[in-house]
Amino acid sequence: MKTNTATLTSLTECVAAELVAVDKLFHKELVSGVDAVNTLVRHVSRFRGKMLRPTLLLLSGRAAGTLTDVHTVLATVVEMVHMATLVHDDVLDEAELRRKGATINHLRGNEAAVLLGDYLISHSFHLCSSLESQLASRVIGRTTNCVCEGELQQIDNRNNLDLDEQTYLQIIGRKTGSLCGASCFLGAHFAGAAESVTHQLETYGLCLGTAFQIQDDILDIVGHPDAVGKTLGLDIEKGKLTLPLIHFLANAPHEHNVLLRSLLQSRDIDKIDRIRNLILPSDAVPYARDRAAQHIARARAALTSLPNSDARHALDQMAEFVIARQW
Amino acid sequence: MKTNTATLTSLTECVAAELVAVDKLFHKELVSGVDAVNTLVRHVSRFRGKMLRPTLLLLSGRAAGTLTDVHTVLATVVEMVHMATLVHDDVLDEAELRRKGATINHLRGNEAAVLLGDYLISHSFHLCSSLESQLASRVIGRTTNCVCEGELQQIDNRNNLDLDEQTYLQIIGRKTGSLCGASCFLGAHFAGAAESVTHQLETYGLCLGTAFQIQDDILDIVGHPDAVGKTLGLDIEKGKLTLPLIHFLANAPHEHNVLLRSLLQSRDIDKIDRIRNLILPSDAVPYARDRAAQHIARARAALTSLPNSDARHALDQMAEFVIARQW
Repeated sequence: MKTNTATLTSLTECVAAELVAVDKLFHKELVSGVDAVNTLVRHVSRFRGKMLRPTLLLLSGRAAGTLTDVHTVLATVVEMVHMATLVHDDVLDEAELRRKGATINHLRGNEAAVLLGDYLISHSFHLCSSLESQLASRVIGRTTNCVCEGELQQIDNRNNLDLDEQTYLQIIGRKTGSLCGASCFLGAHFAGAAESVTHQLETYGLCLGTAFQIQDDILDIVGHPDAVGKTLGLDIEKGKLTLPLIHFLANAPHEHNVLLRSLLQSRDIDKIDRIRNLILPSDAVPYARDRAAQHIARARAALTSLPNSDARHALDQMAEFVIARQW
Repeated sequence: MKTNTATLTSLTECVAAELVAVDKLFHKELVSGVDAVNTLVRHVSRFRGKMLRPTLLLLSGRAAGTLTDVHTVLATVVEMVHMATLVHDDVLDEAELRRKGATINHLRGNEAAVLLGDYLISHSFHLCSSLESQLASRVIGRTTNCVCEGELQQIDNRNNLDLDEQTYLQIIGRKTGSLCGASCFLGAHFAGAAESVTHQLETYGLCLGTAFQIQDDILDIVGHPDAVGKTLGLDIEKGKLTLPLIHFLANAPHEHNVLLRSLLQSRDIDKIDRIRNLILPSDAVPYARDRAAQHIARARAALTSLPNSDARHALDQMAEFVIARQW
């Protein structure tokens, strides 16, 4: 399967018009009477990436029933929440590159990044509150609570070389899985789907999001900087243990384990390369790929109760895409 | 008028029981299944201060009608929003002291401060969405949009020695006035007040909040560190022009103007003291006090249409307190 942008675009063709509407609403909601705010917001627009969460929301809605204007609003809301986490991650990660653009952090300092993220999260809730039903606001609020908990749990485990796989999965489920799950849930619910269907689609999103994060973590070690479009080895630099490393530490021969621990704690300039050279010949990356594939299998299984449709097919193919992608 | 904590407590006696309920709900809403989150949240609880915004909300409700459980929820929401801005201000201001406690930033790093602020703002929206009516969520969302714009406008004007009084007032109206105004509006609205009354109380809150911020800015120059409980001169250190300085730059004799400009741009260790010595003999601080007093007069005038009650009396006295306080 080809995993470039063109492929992704062809998968999402059946919601292309709605994605254009999302993009339009995204910009409209963020317009400010303060010029300086508009300048900053224009900059964040250039960060925009895969539109994964709005796509999941719209495809789930189409697969489970009929799309309405509510879906456009909610798809914009989840994209805005996601953008807020990216902008605040720039404060967190001191990333030097993200999506091949300079970060907000770099351009305007930490303070602008904090406030711009706050502006995005505030507008996401504000936009959500424009709907008649409170349910969406409740789901979004519950989800952002969960995302924050995952992020806090992650920094609490920074430099914890004993982090186990179960806790890692809990963290990424909260950080990434929950918003993807909520996107699918909201899409299905507001398309008038039965409760069992919304539940299945929520499971699909949760599993897909978890696999997406595992793939991100794998790419941080084995990706090509040009393809991934951001600095690699950042997880390691920031003391963030990811699945390949966790598996390696739990299973590699004693002397390899000791070497990895000492490398993780060292300040060597070529630390990332040395860790890569140690990890790559082991089964650590294939193991992580396998775990991601298991989550994708669960995601695809959750789709089987849905009627056949272009949207269901697209969701199925997106699941494949998530773990095949190189960026 | 004595302006210590005891005085403030006696003013708010008629909503004391509700303030206890707010405190309880505040903690209940923030409980997490993740231990590390609870530890951080316990720390933020120690920051808690004057409870100005929940007090305004509750007194406005009581002055305009009848308090219900909705008021407890909303008073908790506005306190949580305010706490989120304080926590993120710690990232912004690199303050070394706040409310006589170490800052989150200092204790756990910028990343924890960003995420804890996000956790607070997320829970404030989540709690707000638990209400039946969407109106509160809309007002809170609109208000937090406005607060973010004020903060962004403020950092955009950092080191702008030509900042004029009108723009300064716009910034503090957005940053501080808007949330106080929204608190009073929500309190009155959910007590069943007529639209004209909610509007009057919103004006009261907006003016009081603006005066509160001017007083904060005055205390940053003339306050006593022990009484104020945070590092003084921070506004100057961070290139933030406040009303006394703006007035001084616009009205002082040419050579004083030049001296202040050069001091503001210098890196002298005793810069703050030298600025204080230059400003204090002028009419800059009295002018700022006078402007604050004008806002307080407008706030009090907005109360006159309300029926006589303990709550109205308390609102009136709080207006006095805001500009008389030394902390």
